[in-house]
Amino acid sequence: MLKVAFEQASLTEDQQQALTAMWRRCVRRIIVSTTLAGSGHPGGSMSSLHALLMLYATLRHDPGNPCWAERDRLLVSMGHISPGVYSVLCEFGYVKEEDLFLGFRRAGSAFAGHVETCVPGVEWNTGNLGQGLSAGTGMALAQRLRKSEGRTVVLMGDGEQQKGQIAEARRFAVKYGLNNLFVVIDRNHLQIGGDTSVVMPQAIEADYVAAQWNVITVKDGHDFGQLFQALRRIFLREVDDPSNPTVVVAETVMGKGVSFMEHKAKYHGSALPEADAAKALEELGLDNPIPLYRERRNTFLAFDEGFCAARPVPVIEVGEPRTYGVEVLTDNRSAYGAVLEDLAARNNDGEVPGVLCFSCDLEGSVKMDGFHKRSKEAFFESGIQEHHAATLAGAASREGFVVFFSTFGVFGVGETYNQQRLNDINQTQLKLVCTHVGLDVGEDGQTHQCLDYLGLLQNLYDFSLFMPADPNQTDRIIRYVAAHSGNFFVGMGRSKLKVICDESGAPRFGGDYRFVPGRADWVRQGHDGAILSYGMALPHALQAREDLAQQHQLKLALLNFASLRPLDQAAILHAAETGLLVTVEDHHVDTGLGARVAAVLADHGRPCRLVRLGVKRYGLSGLPADLYRLEGIDAVGIVRAVLQAKTDGSSRT
Amino acid sequence: MLKVAFEQASLTEDQQQALTAMWRRCVRRIIVSTTLAGSGHPGGSMSSLHALLMLYATLRHDPGNPCWAERDRLLVSMGHISPGVYSVLCEFGYVKEEDLFLGFRRAGSAFAGHVETCVPGVEWNTGNLGQGLSAGTGMALAQRLRKSEGRTVVLMGDGEQQKGQIAEARRFAVKYGLNNLFVVIDRNHLQIGGDTSVVMPQAIEADYVAAQWNVITVKDGHDFGQLFQALRRIFLREVDDPSNPTVVVAETVMGKGVSFMEHKAKYHGSALPEADAAKALEELGLDNPIPLYRERRNTFLAFDEGFCAARPVPVIEVGEPRTYGVEVLTDNRSAYGAVLEDLAARNNDGEVPGVLCFSCDLEGSVKMDGFHKRSKEAFFESGIQEHHAATLAGAASREGFVVFFSTFGVFGVGETYNQQRLNDINQTQLKLVCTHVGLDVGEDGQTHQCLDYLGLLQNLYDFSLFMPADPNQTDRIIRYVAAHSGNFFVGMGRSKLKVICDESGAPRFGGDYRFVPGRADWVRQGHDGAILSYGMALPHALQAREDLAQQHQLKLALLNFASLRPLDQAAILHAAETGLLVTVEDHHVDTGLGARVAAVLADHGRPCRLVRLGVKRYGLSGLPADLYRLEGIDAVGIVRAVLQAKTDGSSRT
Repeated sequence: MLKVAFEQASLTEDQQQALTAMWRRCVRRIIVSTTLAGSGHPGGSMSSLHALLMLYATLRHDPGNPCWAERDRLLVSMGHISPGVYSVLCEFGYVKEEDLFLGFRRAGSAFAGHVETCVPGVEWNTGNLGQGLSAGTGMALAQRLRKSEGRTVVLMGDGEQQKGQIAEARRFAVKYGLNNLFVVIDRNHLQIGGDTSVVMPQAIEADYVAAQWNVITVKDGHDFGQLFQALRRIFLREVDDPSNPTVVVAETVMGKGVSFMEHKAKYHGSALPEADAAKALEELGLDNPIPLYRERRNTFLAFDEGFCAARPVPVIEVGEPRTYGVEVLTDNRSAYGAVLEDLAARNNDGEVPGVLCFSCDLEGSVKMDGFHKRSKEAFFESGIQEHHAATLAGAASREGFVVFFSTFGVFGVGETYNQQRLNDINQTQLKLVCTHVGLDVGEDGQTHQCLDYLGLLQNLYDFSLFMPADPNQTDRIIRYVAAHSGNFFVGMGRSKLKVICDESGAPRFGGDYRFVPGRADWVRQGHDGAILSYGMALPHALQAREDLAQQHQLKLALLNFASLRPLDQAAILHAAETGLLVTVEDHHVDTGLGARVAAVLADHGRPCRLVRLGVKRYGLSGLPADLYRLEGIDAVGIVRAVLQAKTDGSSRT
Repeated sequence: MLKVAFEQASLTEDQQQALTAMWRRCVRRIIVSTTLAGSGHPGGSMSSLHALLMLYATLRHDPGNPCWAERDRLLVSMGHISPGVYSVLCEFGYVKEEDLFLGFRRAGSAFAGHVETCVPGVEWNTGNLGQGLSAGTGMALAQRLRKSEGRTVVLMGDGEQQKGQIAEARRFAVKYGLNNLFVVIDRNHLQIGGDTSVVMPQAIEADYVAAQWNVITVKDGHDFGQLFQALRRIFLREVDDPSNPTVVVAETVMGKGVSFMEHKAKYHGSALPEADAAKALEELGLDNPIPLYRERRNTFLAFDEGFCAARPVPVIEVGEPRTYGVEVLTDNRSAYGAVLEDLAARNNDGEVPGVLCFSCDLEGSVKMDGFHKRSKEAFFESGIQEHHAATLAGAASREGFVVFFSTFGVFGVGETYNQQRLNDINQTQLKLVCTHVGLDVGEDGQTHQCLDYLGLLQNLYDFSLFMPADPNQTDRIIRYVAAHSGNFFVGMGRSKLKVICDESGAPRFGGDYRFVPGRADWVRQGHDGAILSYGMALPHALQAREDLAQQHQLKLALLNFASLRPLDQAAILHAAETGLLVTVEDHHVDTGLGARVAAVLADHGRPCRLVRLGVKRYGLSGLPADLYRLEGIDAVGIVRAVLQAKTDGSSRT
């Protein structure tokens, strides 16, 4: 494997030749793999190829141990240059050329159209542009916290510099002095729509300078010597401000190396037809294996699942649960904050903190302030830059830390839904704890009311979804997610809540209660129907249940679904035996628990009268009690709905 | 109403005195309204108050006709300064002080915690920060297209400058030379978390300079004279580059005017307790009406619905539908593009175009290129800046144009979900047409597969959701949405599709077929069960239905749900009479049509065997046919599922 050290002043003649030979083999792989697939992105793969090769030749990495903790991270933000990345990974011994040619862009193969981590050597699944730098800051931050010598480099396209999330990431990197991070921009001046200066004029260097980054321009990004000198300056810290990160802007040519592909935007996303590919290979003096592999790709191939990088799963102390007595009136947020402080006290006093917290200018509101005070070096404030923060926290969560990211629901779920989706695709280990969800936000009104936390996150296949009902359950859920791997959402409102009690008047979720995902809590027993609820609506459901019992002699069961995914289907079917289910939620009426219950009933062909109560319009600005009343999800509304259903039911029979 | 003209060189003494008197009345309103509500944002309201007053005194507007088409637009991006905005609107005769005091932050009143357009004079519902400039560009663009003399000014906070969407909006404004747009930044140096330079250091002026905006600094943003001079320079075009937009950075003090509130971040989002409010009013030498109004607020009040600005609903020619014959193989995208060209030909040759198209560097892929060629001045390219583009298009759609915004599903729905939510809250008239949805995207893989278009958009109360099954239905749906007001989503895949035929072999959606929202299409009749499908999955469902009839002597009905919202509940209940429903969709299995069908069955207490077929994991990268096969939503999988259900069903009985 070629290894060039920055101790040398310049590339040797041998190294130049070796790199050029590698480049020729890689160009061939790019052309062959895309033509075989009949699709893909050869143009940018070729414009960035010299930079990719120079990076792999100089970075610290070990193909025999792709997950080596001390490696440098090379994150490719423009995931569409996958043919280039795979080609270079062939060259450095990570993957085999034959597997690439047979598998590229075929279902089940690891060689996806946009780079995925199932290929060893790939650090992050990318494809949606402009988000790689945020992930890179997460990796660089983790290296810093682990006192690693490793650096992170993010290779980016020039078109994607338009994306606002990059401006956010730039600021964050400077705020935290991430000089172990650098960026290389493949400045080929073309994007899908043509010339970048026509599609969307931008001042790339000026934007980085304004953000206080060091800027190095490489006049010919296809000259290995110039690329080496630029990287060497970074390594030796020969930049204007060595305490800040650096960007290398490498001037390049789309489609570099094949005369009729150069400078053509068309080849951003088009493979060469076979005849053109043959011409290109001939022009380069390279052999053409396309006919051979075409034949082999036509026979069915079962691909294995690809490489799966083992991610360090942190082991931490979660401490003893705390019980809030019936006399306590507090909000779930505060119970969350108290657990964070516990976690800091138990896990963050060593050389490397075990638990990290990420916030977006709402530290006090989301109750991360106690953790911050206790564990300054493990708290990261991103400002009003939620897209960046969501990706950043996701990336950091894969680096052996227990990571909490908190903000209001509208920002952590709605505004950054796609960032969470990309986190989920990247198998992050994120604890996304959102406060101020639902109408419970009250007076802040429509724009701040997150009524879709389940409706949105249910689309993410690997997120567990929890909604604690009171401070006791919050305490236990937060300790649970802290100790377990996977992506978790924990949602909570803004208001102070009474502790939920059992029929004896003792805290229902205190003491020995243990949170188990996928298990509903029977808060009250009953046979005249069942109310199914969770979160901020549960106290209202409980009040309604008691009013029905006392004033109407109707004894309904009350179930709490703190675990919305996994969902306790058995409990739903059991409750359905009462003949009447009423779901109550501070959530869009069509996309939350009610919809899931309907699906469970339908999937099991179980007929049962179902009444779904929830929010049927964008909320108003006012006291939560008024908003609940207007939507019929307060105790009065629930009682009314139950009585109505009972009347309908008896008039039917 | 105070009206200061830019023809004068400076403010007169009388004007200064009048403005100061207005300022005093407004400070009082800010303190009184927030204290009465017990919440709200007085600090920023007070730091921006001088600027707000100076703007209203100089802009062209008419309180008697708040929707006057030729008015200047004043858009307040930091919606939390609502007490300041409402106070100034009292001053200029838009609303009454008494209504503000009685209604502020109470359910049903127009005076919401963050500004909403139900208050006359408010141009855009804001609250989520950093998005107002994008909306402002949409308004300025519309003014330009209408040849209006009107200008748009966006008042913004300094903290929100961190948000990446602003960087996108800045670039767009320069690309299109929107010098009828200017920004005023309330630079009070504080955000919720404290000093902006601590929370997230930023170089506000440098960022605007890098983007080629003109920058004017106002050293004392509480000096009416300085503010007037800054605005006058813009009006007289006395800036470095009069062809570009301008930003005024006004240095201000949080909580300005009350000694113990000044420079305190706490008052960003905290109202004064009554005693402190009394002290503040006393310090200012103002009377205290709080006790009086406190009493009156305690009695119940039914608020009316508030002001509702009449939005111009454009009347356009949609032309005659086009029928694609059975011999045609094309994609829905191309049928969409053909309608856009029709619309351009019929509506865009006058002085003001009737139809506008917005794209994000995917003009060719989303088939807007024909429209672009035909109607250059009505096509707007935002580059890789989807957040900005979504808000921009939404704002433009309220200005009397028929607006189409197109990009891939992952960008137009997932990445910009919250921008679409805020559009919906703002009652925009957007035609959001997304291509490349579903597994049908194929080889581009996980990051590009939008499997949640219904799952997400179902959370938006006022969006209609349509998924055409073939080019004929696409043609008719696009013409329908062009002619109707409201927010519409139309989704389509990437692949070429055969024309759907009726049993006679003629195009099912050609000729006289008319698209009616909320009406399902019976594509085939049958009594052994019913397959419910739509969009890219429909051809597979049709094939399965024919295979079942021919090979298994099972005659199932086949329904096409091109209208997913409104949903044809009657058709579902009718189909349920067959005893077996099978939903088939290229969508997340738990959040699409299958879930809605389950809810309809449960809501009506209608027992029916339901089998939901859909996507059960993040997709792979490969040919759509392979991906459909792996998820069991190709014809073979559907046949298998139907036979299995039939076997289960008969073994049950």
